[in-house]
Amino acid sequence: MRLAFFGDVVGKSGRDVLVEELSAFRDRLKLDFVVVNAENAAGGFGITERTAIELFDAGADVLTLGNHSWDQSEALTYIEREPRLLRPANYPSGTAPGRGTGLYETRSGARVMVMNVLLRLYMQPLDDPFACVDEALSASPLGQVADAIIVDAHGEATSEKHAMGHFCDGRASLVVGTHTHIPTADHQILAGGTAYQTDAGMCGSYDSVIGMDKEEPLRRFTTHMRSGRMQAASGPATACGVYVETDDRTGLAVRVEPIRFGGVLSEALPVV
Amino acid sequence: MRLAFFGDVVGKSGRDVLVEELSAFRDRLKLDFVVVNAENAAGGFGITERTAIELFDAGADVLTLGNHSWDQSEALTYIEREPRLLRPANYPSGTAPGRGTGLYETRSGARVMVMNVLLRLYMQPLDDPFACVDEALSASPLGQVADAIIVDAHGEATSEKHAMGHFCDGRASLVVGTHTHIPTADHQILAGGTAYQTDAGMCGSYDSVIGMDKEEPLRRFTTHMRSGRMQAASGPATACGVYVETDDRTGLAVRVEPIRFGGVLSEALPVV
Amino acid sequence: MRLAFFGDVVGKSGRDVLVEELSAFRDRLKLDFVVVNAENAAGGFGITERTAIELFDAGADVLTLGNHSWDQSEALTYIEREPRLLRPANYPSGTAPGRGTGLYETRSGARVMVMNVLLRLYMQPLDDPFACVDEALSASPLGQVADAIIVDAHGEATSEKHAMGHFCDGRASLVVGTHTHIPTADHQILAGGTAYQTDAGMCGSYDSVIGMDKEEPLRRFTTHMRSGRMQAASGPATACGVYVETDDRTGLAVRVEPIRFGGVLSEALPVV
Amino acid sequence: MRLAFFGDVVGKSGRDVLVEELSAFRDRLKLDFVVVNAENAAGGFGITERTAIELFDAGADVLTLGNHSWDQSEALTYIEREPRLLRPANYPSGTAPGRGTGLYETRSGARVMVMNVLLRLYMQPLDDPFACVDEALSASPLGQVADAIIVDAHGEATSEKHAMGHFCDGRASLVVGTHTHIPTADHQILAGGTAYQTDAGMCGSYDSVIGMDKEEPLRRFTTHMRSGRMQAASGPATACGVYVETDDRTGLAVRVEPIRFGGVLSEALPVV
Ligand SMILES: [Fe+2]
Ligand SMILES: [Fe+2]
Ligand SMILES: [Fe+2]
Ligand SMILES: [Fe+2]
Ligand SMILES: [Fe+2]
Ligand SMILES: [Fe+2]
Ligand SMILES: [Fe+2]
Ligand SMILES: [Fe+2]
Repeated sequence: MRLAFFGDVVGKSGRDVLVEELSAFRDRLKLDFVVVNAENAAGGFGITERTAIELFDAGADVLTLGNHSWDQSEALTYIEREPRLLRPANYPSGTAPGRGTGLYETRSGARVMVMNVLLRLYMQPLDDPFACVDEALSASPLGQVADAIIVDAHGEATSEKHAMGHFCDGRASLVVGTHTHIPTADHQILAGGTAYQTDAGMCGSYDSVIGMDKEEPLRRFTTHMRSGRMQAASGPATACGVYVETDDRTGLAVRVEPIRFGGVLSEALPVV
Repeated sequence: MRLAFFGDVVGKSGRDVLVEELSAFRDRLKLDFVVVNAENAAGGFGITERTAIELFDAGADVLTLGNHSWDQSEALTYIEREPRLLRPANYPSGTAPGRGTGLYETRSGARVMVMNVLLRLYMQPLDDPFACVDEALSASPLGQVADAIIVDAHGEATSEKHAMGHFCDGRASLVVGTHTHIPTADHQILAGGTAYQTDAGMCGSYDSVIGMDKEEPLRRFTTHMRSGRMQAASGPATACGVYVETDDRTGLAVRVEPIRFGGVLSEALPVV
Repeated sequence: MRLAFFGDVVGKSGRDVLVEELSAFRDRLKLDFVVVNAENAAGGFGITERTAIELFDAGADVLTLGNHSWDQSEALTYIEREPRLLRPANYPSGTAPGRGTGLYETRSGARVMVMNVLLRLYMQPLDDPFACVDEALSASPLGQVADAIIVDAHGEATSEKHAMGHFCDGRASLVVGTHTHIPTADHQILAGGTAYQTDAGMCGSYDSVIGMDKEEPLRRFTTHMRSGRMQAASGPATACGVYVETDDRTGLAVRVEPIRFGGVLSEALPVV
Repeated sequence: MRLAFFGDVVGKSGRDVLVEELSAFRDRLKLDFVVVNAENAAGGFGITERTAIELFDAGADVLTLGNHSWDQSEALTYIEREPRLLRPANYPSGTAPGRGTGLYETRSGARVMVMNVLLRLYMQPLDDPFACVDEALSASPLGQVADAIIVDAHGEATSEKHAMGHFCDGRASLVVGTHTHIPTADHQILAGGTAYQTDAGMCGSYDSVIGMDKEEPLRRFTTHMRSGRMQAASGPATACGVYVETDDRTGLAVRVEPIRFGGVLSEALPVV
């Protein structure tokens, strides 16, 4: 199977690059399934029904979230109506609306399990992400219940993401980090067959401070004073993500490549 | 000028890849100057005179440090004798031994200013890194006092590093992050001419948790219990870094490329 | 001299207890000078001109702030017009409006130096609070330039506050912590003659979560979901603070006692 | 029933004040049960069998721990043999040795449930302390399974402790915080009948930085450099704690008072 995962979409600029390019990219690579982290889709803060639909229409099969899930309060009700939208799975049971894992069918009938989980180092202490992922992977064994499994590990610290990759190794097709908004160059297939990249990077303008207009973050770092709200940067976005090919029999990865197109970063396009 | 910067060397495996490959790599790329972050060179924790000499002999012109500078106490005295070893420049005045900036001469007589600075988000609160860098850049204007300037921004958060890149834009040849031990794929030349990459990545084994044997970090993340000390992973290391070409007249960057060789990560070698 | 310091005033309930009681308390104890931390005076978040005037009218000579200084944006301009309002002194030079130290005259002509400083453990990294305090104390030697010196150390961690107490010992009349909103019972005169208490406690309702209505904080701790903004609790407030008597010749403390009146906490009133 | 709880015993000085005074204090107040937090009993770091026995012999019925539980590795096996020693209950199931809750019998046959739980704000993310406490309190209803219930909430942030107090209100006899090493003056009986104090304070020298010799912490705060290990301060200790009387029928509190004796802090002794 051919899968692609795109990191945090930041604001209009981030949505635009996917609206304009994702459909053709999807065709060219003959992608079976596309997951997009959309926690910053609405002006940099959370997601709305309108921005979600834009991304679904652009070619996303499933959208994941993170620590910004509820920045737009309409997400609290929208997620109840939209099974293709996932929030972190490790909220304490019975607290958050929506769900954190989903089993989806591709156009050709294959089953893809997707999961969003919030890590804890330098972040909010939701329930144990390792126990949560372990339970989900045990409930949907790769190659049996699911033909492919994608784990979006939303976290700050590279150590916790790297540990999560190994923790899932052999039981997921792809473990990919999100949240730092900077793509990492460490895509690899781990010893057990799981594709891994510490961070997918964002779909947003890299002439910015992690997707936001530079002025306000620079002011805060240098003066510790605020002057208004952060704004998503409006420059042309680079779409950043990961491409994975899996073995149809085992669901494990046989190939992993970075994806980068648009904007100011160097281009990386899998050749298929 | 042709410059290379390599990220955090982790343990023997990280030193070995440089000892074996750096000299030839340096010749092949006709490098004028090579800086290596060595804060984890001694078994993963700090630096010793012996490990520093190994790296100088391998072809490093200058070594930088970070939050692990003093893990080996001999570094406290060694740094006083070794001007090519730099610790974070933003220790409060009069506290730490050694220095945080240095002006060096290449074999061909060009002057390279190198600076190591510790960022503060999720880290120790040393003095303001932005004010510290500003002062150093003002004292050694690029293209006047220094023919090239390399700033090693040792930090956890991508936002603070990205902000530091823009903060120095036009005044340094290269701003490169270290500390997360994972290379980023966002190398770019900023609007003002400064080459930038959020993290250089480490020189260490990527079959690990950021350079350390997987077992202990995984145990800590899943059980919150320790069972002995972290150990640097012994698998073959990938040397990760950044290559920059500067305009001899201005000192600004005209080209930036990632460097990755050895170990399990995908190879990236600048073609010159 | 007889001094009193009251901790973080939280919302209307916190202002009310001072408006109703401070004037009589001040007379009864024959207080020469009263300092009140007012960073939460306006509905729990920051300060406004109106709420500041209420507290000045109630009997405060000087108001101090903290990490919530600018929650109400009018404070940014009000502080420029009001020398009796102090924000943390350790903002980088040239960034924040207003000032962080002040030298005031009591009704009887004595000079009192007051200083507000933001600590850094688990907080924003302003400039070094120890260096900042050191400079201010050197510029206004106790017993020479100032007849009394009060340092409001606004911080989270008991260790950093305790260290600040010793750091100032012999050079200030009183070092008192603020920010945690819970009074500590460790008032003491340190070896060098400085009165010290780790936290003054708040002037607010203790039937709350540190001054806020219980429901929202409890929801966040148990579900990690928000449901609206925090609200200052409206129950009757306890005014919490510290009473200090100084030696008129040296400015050092000869007596320190806790102050607690109103609300649900046990009463503590210095007997004079 | 008459209960006493003493906060973190720090080193020899902290043990000594209890060895010398606890037995007589216990008799004078006719205490039915005494709990002591002992996470720093062994030189400031963790606990050993020898130091635990000293405290049991001095009159402690149960010892609790915290984030320093395993600083001395012998505690990992000792706790398996000693049912009166409790570590935080919210370790993930199956990870830590020992137990986090215990049901004990007083000399007169009453049953006391004791629980140690690690909070998460600015600390390690163990499992949800609120869910953990909820489960334990549901399993041992106050007034039915247990005649008294004491919850030691080991945490940094006053907000999380205050929230925990309300969370348990009506279901525990006493919720008392530990870890900050500074006693708070907010002892009160909450609306539902649970006695509460944000922090018990330590049994240790208050001429220190939270129980440690001042020099090293001051050096670290001012220079960010270390010079050797922290040492427990050796000055005379103040024993700090809380005294609670419960209604024998309901197990709820009818009286709460601070305890402070020895050392430099002001004395507080319940009059019975
Ligand atoms: Fe994001
Ligand atoms: Fe995020
Ligand atoms: Fe580091
Ligand atoms: Fe490092
Ligand atoms: Fe406050
Ligand atoms: Fe505050
Ligand atoms: Fe502790
Ligand atoms: Fe402790």
